[in-house]
Amino acid sequence: MTNIFAEIITIGDEILYGQIVDTNSQWMSAELDKMGIRVLRKVAVGDTQAAILGAVQNAQADIILMTGGLGPTKDDITKTMLMEYFGGQLVLDEGVLANLTRLFSMRGREVSLTNREQAMVPDNCQVLMNAVGTAPGMWFEHGGKVYVSMPGVPYEMKWLMANRVIPRLREKFDAPTIIHKMIKTINVPESTLSDLIEAWELALPPHIRLAYLPRMGQVRLRLTGTGRDRAQLEAEIQAEMAKVMPLIQKYVYGFDDDEIEKVVGQLLVNQGKTIATAESCTGGFVAHQLTQQAGASRYFMGGVVAYSNEVKMSQLGVQAATLQAHGAVSEETAKEMAAQVRLRYGTDFGIATTGVAGPDGGSPAKPVGMVWIALADADGVEARKLQLTTERGLNISLTNNSVLNWVRMRLEGL
Amino acid sequence: MTNIFAEIITIGDEILYGQIVDTNSQWMSAELDKMGIRVLRKVAVGDTQAAILGAVQNAQADIILMTGGLGPTKDDITKTMLMEYFGGQLVLDEGVLANLTRLFSMRGREVSLTNREQAMVPDNCQVLMNAVGTAPGMWFEHGGKVYVSMPGVPYEMKWLMANRVIPRLREKFDAPTIIHKMIKTINVPESTLSDLIEAWELALPPHIRLAYLPRMGQVRLRLTGTGRDRAQLEAEIQAEMAKVMPLIQKYVYGFDDDEIEKVVGQLLVNQGKTIATAESCTGGFVAHQLTQQAGASRYFMGGVVAYSNEVKMSQLGVQAATLQAHGAVSEETAKEMAAQVRLRYGTDFGIATTGVAGPDGGSPAKPVGMVWIALADADGVEARKLQLTTERGLNISLTNNSVLNWVRMRLEGL
Repeated sequence: MTNIFAEIITIGDEILYGQIVDTNSQWMSAELDKMGIRVLRKVAVGDTQAAILGAVQNAQADIILMTGGLGPTKDDITKTMLMEYFGGQLVLDEGVLANLTRLFSMRGREVSLTNREQAMVPDNCQVLMNAVGTAPGMWFEHGGKVYVSMPGVPYEMKWLMANRVIPRLREKFDAPTIIHKMIKTINVPESTLSDLIEAWELALPPHIRLAYLPRMGQVRLRLTGTGRDRAQLEAEIQAEMAKVMPLIQKYVYGFDDDEIEKVVGQLLVNQGKTIATAESCTGGFVAHQLTQQAGASRYFMGGVVAYSNEVKMSQLGVQAATLQAHGAVSEETAKEMAAQVRLRYGTDFGIATTGVAGPDGGSPAKPVGMVWIALADADGVEARKLQLTTERGLNISLTNNSVLNWVRMRLEGL
Repeated sequence: MTNIFAEIITIGDEILYGQIVDTNSQWMSAELDKMGIRVLRKVAVGDTQAAILGAVQNAQADIILMTGGLGPTKDDITKTMLMEYFGGQLVLDEGVLANLTRLFSMRGREVSLTNREQAMVPDNCQVLMNAVGTAPGMWFEHGGKVYVSMPGVPYEMKWLMANRVIPRLREKFDAPTIIHKMIKTINVPESTLSDLIEAWELALPPHIRLAYLPRMGQVRLRLTGTGRDRAQLEAEIQAEMAKVMPLIQKYVYGFDDDEIEKVVGQLLVNQGKTIATAESCTGGFVAHQLTQQAGASRYFMGGVVAYSNEVKMSQLGVQAATLQAHGAVSEETAKEMAAQVRLRYGTDFGIATTGVAGPDGGSPAKPVGMVWIALADADGVEARKLQLTTERGLNISLTNNSVLNWVRMRLEGL
């Protein structure tokens, strides 16, 4: 089997100045890895013709993927550089112009002269039409290598990769069969998982690899099998899954593209149940997570962000006496919030969050990171205390994980 | 003036496989930038001797900073590679051994043979003692260049940079002054901005550069000045700002680290005003954005996520007749939502969103991406129609931008 190698070139002064984190190249690497294409090197260079040219000339791989340096303005010079390097000239592409006109008319605007220049493309590349943005991608073939240039805006790059680049790469290269299976766990430390599955992990055959991918209170376990025969490889992966799952079943909320909010949504749909949210410290994030899913209106009726005590009382009916006796961050308040939102919104489940998100507002009795979550259903209401971190954003995220995972376990009868 | 250039080499298969996002190099770049050292290039390579050697040989800059590939396990080979490349040999460093012993005894462990190898260091480098981890940093000087190797664990790298590397770099190099100024615009296309400021941009002196950084319906303009005299450079940047700002004033919501939700929050605090949100299509995202800011409870009282028509009626008092006559996605519904949430939550401003986020649910009269936003204050309530994209996540984000920018303009009297 022949290995296929790729290199990723990220263009943009903002990367070199440290003004943004380069998440594009991580996403691209992960996609290439899924196809069995190995990334040899990543290079980030600035917005100068010399730097971009140097990176392109240095690239050793079979596939060179470039992002950034494409757009309607003067700092965008990749297109001209590539055209000259590969010896072409700019021509007007009617398809790109039509796409530009369509995008602009959707926004009630006309195509300016500056924008019209984006419809000029090198005549020595395949144009990769970009349905979600004005700059097209470009696919050059030269000296047995493929060079692809895409805009740096993440959602445009992702759209082009998924719809234009990956299908063409699959067609052109005969990469080995690679099968990934992701097991997604929540609320369990990496070291606990590792202890539980160590014997199984050590006995894996060499063509099946395991990786631990921790992120935001979740640990994803990724099995990667490499081979030639897809059916056989799939059977082998299934056999390994059958061995490992009984060891970790209760921590697993889903597989592959599942996200906790998606799994909860699907369980609610399947069981014909509905939910409402009463949020204080998460400030709308739980509702946002649930409504990121298309079709969320089938199970999510709505919610309250009760940030002030007044709103907790007037819009949720939390009792003044409860707030006075126990404070907003308390078991009692969390329970009233969950029970009340369930009643007022007429749903099967009510969930609530109240805590000290930080960085300020902590006290010895209620330090930053102390959070109460509550879950109400027809049988009553329960609350749980979490002690999280000192990071506001992380606390919001971890609280969301915990409360949604609780709903999942309730729906699954765990 | 001599420019000082740096290159960052990140070592680790986990970066190439896309298993983690490389945040180290972003942090290092930002630190170097503050010192006036320009990062020319970033390279990420795998954990092989050949890959690391290739990256080191290719490096062109004055300062080469490397992270990763140092540690107690066999995939860590940077130390040996560098020692051989610069022609030294490994010797036991008593200071490093003492540090190892101290760290291990803190964890109640003894130094193993594998760990003891970490006290062997090249005799041709300055050892950079690492107080927070077992692998020391190494500082080589060769051919007029400085090569620094650090572990890849983020907090160890940051400790070594702050305590060992940056002080030495300051001593050794007399870097130029670099000043960045970021102008942040919203709801204006890059090409419109470019047309407005073209003459000014073309007249910029060569030591002041402009970059356009578009992201999610926002365009950031970054001015970068390089010079010797900080006061003079600051005056020059100020002069350019004074020329460009009148051309684009109404699109500018802030500068540098400002974010639209932060700017709105600050304006509300300054004017002693409060706000509440009534969200349908944004599903809690606007509330989440406002509450990401520490101290949001000073101006954000709370909000409703009214996802179903029932909740719009029962929790917000939107009239059944309005929903029946005009539908949930309508000017009338948006206005009632904004006016009602303002009244019920007792705030100065009420804002509302209702639309077809997609990907499904569109109709010829109300296609995916059609959104109504509304703003209520003591003077009454207004609504505006947006026609956005077919991407659910992007529509949620762009709606948030538009409604918060509207509040900003109202607060600024624009």
